[in-house]
Amino acid sequence: MTGDKVRLASVGLGRWARVLARGAQRGNVVELASCFSRSEDKRQAFAEEYGISRTAGTYEDLLADPEIEGVIITTPNDTHREVIQQALEAGKGVYTDKPIANTMEDAVAIADSVKASGGVFAVGHSARRLSGHREMQRWLREGLIGDVSLVEANFSNERGLELTPDNWRWYKSKSPGGPLIQLGVHHADNLQALLGPVKSVSSRHKRLYTNAEIPDATISVLEFEAGMLGYLGCGWASPGVYTMNVLGTKANLFYDLDFTHWDESHMADKYSTLRSQAHGQSEREQVDLPPTDMFREQLDEFALAIRGETKVEVGAEDAVRNLAVIYAALASEERGGMPVEVGEVIENTSATS
Amino acid sequence: MTGDKVRLASVGLGRWARVLARGAQRGNVVELASCFSRSEDKRQAFAEEYGISRTAGTYEDLLADPEIEGVIITTPNDTHREVIQQALEAGKGVYTDKPIANTMEDAVAIADSVKASGGVFAVGHSARRLSGHREMQRWLREGLIGDVSLVEANFSNERGLELTPDNWRWYKSKSPGGPLIQLGVHHADNLQALLGPVKSVSSRHKRLYTNAEIPDATISVLEFEAGMLGYLGCGWASPGVYTMNVLGTKANLFYDLDFTHWDESHMADKYSTLRSQAHGQSEREQVDLPPTDMFREQLDEFALAIRGETKVEVGAEDAVRNLAVIYAALASEERGGMPVEVGEVIENTSATS
Repeated sequence: MTGDKVRLASVGLGRWARVLARGAQRGNVVELASCFSRSEDKRQAFAEEYGISRTAGTYEDLLADPEIEGVIITTPNDTHREVIQQALEAGKGVYTDKPIANTMEDAVAIADSVKASGGVFAVGHSARRLSGHREMQRWLREGLIGDVSLVEANFSNERGLELTPDNWRWYKSKSPGGPLIQLGVHHADNLQALLGPVKSVSSRHKRLYTNAEIPDATISVLEFEAGMLGYLGCGWASPGVYTMNVLGTKANLFYDLDFTHWDESHMADKYSTLRSQAHGQSEREQVDLPPTDMFREQLDEFALAIRGETKVEVGAEDAVRNLAVIYAALASEERGGMPVEVGEVIENTSATS
Repeated sequence: MTGDKVRLASVGLGRWARVLARGAQRGNVVELASCFSRSEDKRQAFAEEYGISRTAGTYEDLLADPEIEGVIITTPNDTHREVIQQALEAGKGVYTDKPIANTMEDAVAIADSVKASGGVFAVGHSARRLSGHREMQRWLREGLIGDVSLVEANFSNERGLELTPDNWRWYKSKSPGGPLIQLGVHHADNLQALLGPVKSVSSRHKRLYTNAEIPDATISVLEFEAGMLGYLGCGWASPGVYTMNVLGTKANLFYDLDFTHWDESHMADKYSTLRSQAHGQSEREQVDLPPTDMFREQLDEFALAIRGETKVEVGAEDAVRNLAVIYAALASEERGGMPVEVGEVIENTSATS
């Protein structure tokens, strides 16, 4: 596609825009053709850094540019709804970072806009593309795990110990559930991609060592529609952990990823281990992890989908369901730990949006 | 102590009596001086196997033998109360395998008898003596983990897939909660030994792939009185897993034990790994595990306690609290997953026993 790359524009030019720009530029499908941030300095610096030929003075100008086929949105979660809807109305394809939005109301409104516009829409639930998760999916699909009874996932780090009031994550209103919404939504996607929809969630939260408003220790129990039970642990008061274990009738799989290498996603698999344990064995064997590059792959896919050459793997429906798992956990905590149905969270939102 | 070993007798001569006899004979504190089972053939075979000089024709004869200072009980859980109370009344020290009993009523009645008799009483919650758990205790005590926010424990195996109606574990009445009571009670002890009393438990159970009456996938969430949250997963539908992870402000610890080597407890540490991850690091470092021998150590301790030379580490109080964690989980499952207070479970039992 060297002659006719898909022309995308970066919107919101912070740290994450850079991670995604580097991912796009590792491929040969995407051309970063423009960019926008309110700050002209930021625009110029970003354009120079990534060899982008022009910048837009306003978001409206960017969307009016007929050359631009799609936007890569990394603005704060609570701005997603407006920024996404404007782009869809302008006929652009939209890639947004996860979570799709900060509230269920915004998420459902975005999903409605996607449906009404018929536009291409992708959400950056990239972790499911990591080689370890892809291998888990393959093992399950090919019957190598057998029937799954228990799944365990943890995504934690030390952020809660470092938060100060000038960080939006300090506040319950902006980061409800703390590590649960910021980190847990990744595993909500990984788990639902692997095992299908979550039916209900029960959750307990504690604020132990952080000075911020949010909890720094959360445990959620997921009941899947397919029957199995899942544990999701998300904390903000320990060294970083990213694990997923699947226990099946024929084999167990144990996945352990060092996410300090997350940003350079073509390297992440090298710092991951997937081990298998077969029925009747106690030893664990190392599983080979074919190299992947989640950020490059999802942006290539998004770009090709704009051209009608493929479909987006993670669209609005999956992203709404991932956020709904988190909001079911938040509702459960409010109801003293009682299980809350994910379907109920989605339906109640639809009715009021 | 070669000249004057403590004379103990084995009661209930099945597989587990053999594991404990081998443990006792690895030490030089205990002399297995007699044994009893209803079957004379079993008595003779056991006595021959372990070089025991005499056997008892009835349990009453055994307890009337003035040479015998204590009994090692491995009869079925639902017989513990009667067998233990008889031995205490006869003035013998009592070691019983875990769980202390099958019901809270029996457990509290046993605890009351221990108190009334003033006798020496030990419960075989041996796992806390494994080198990995001892190291975790040391790290916590010496402040190396910092403050704990989350702890994760799993003890699972494939037993539910193999159960048939001639096995008592098939039945809900004899093995309530299935893997939760049989395996989970170990971690209930390990976790409370490490982090102090559990305050409340919420739990969800599923019967997925077993033909038996019991669940084969259970997840319990523990809230400790000290504040942290714990996950306890116990399944009977996968290859065997025994893990415990502790997430703290200064470091994480990851413990993984191959319990196919559990029975020969002087070997178990060799098939275990304990890894640490310090604050600011993503790498995990192997922690040395000094050799332990849980079965030998607990029987040596029990024997020396009979002679007044030491105290028993795990007595009736701890054992009742371990079983109460399991019964709080069972009550939570019955109440649709609502958290149940462990103290409430104990108090309600005391009132009716």
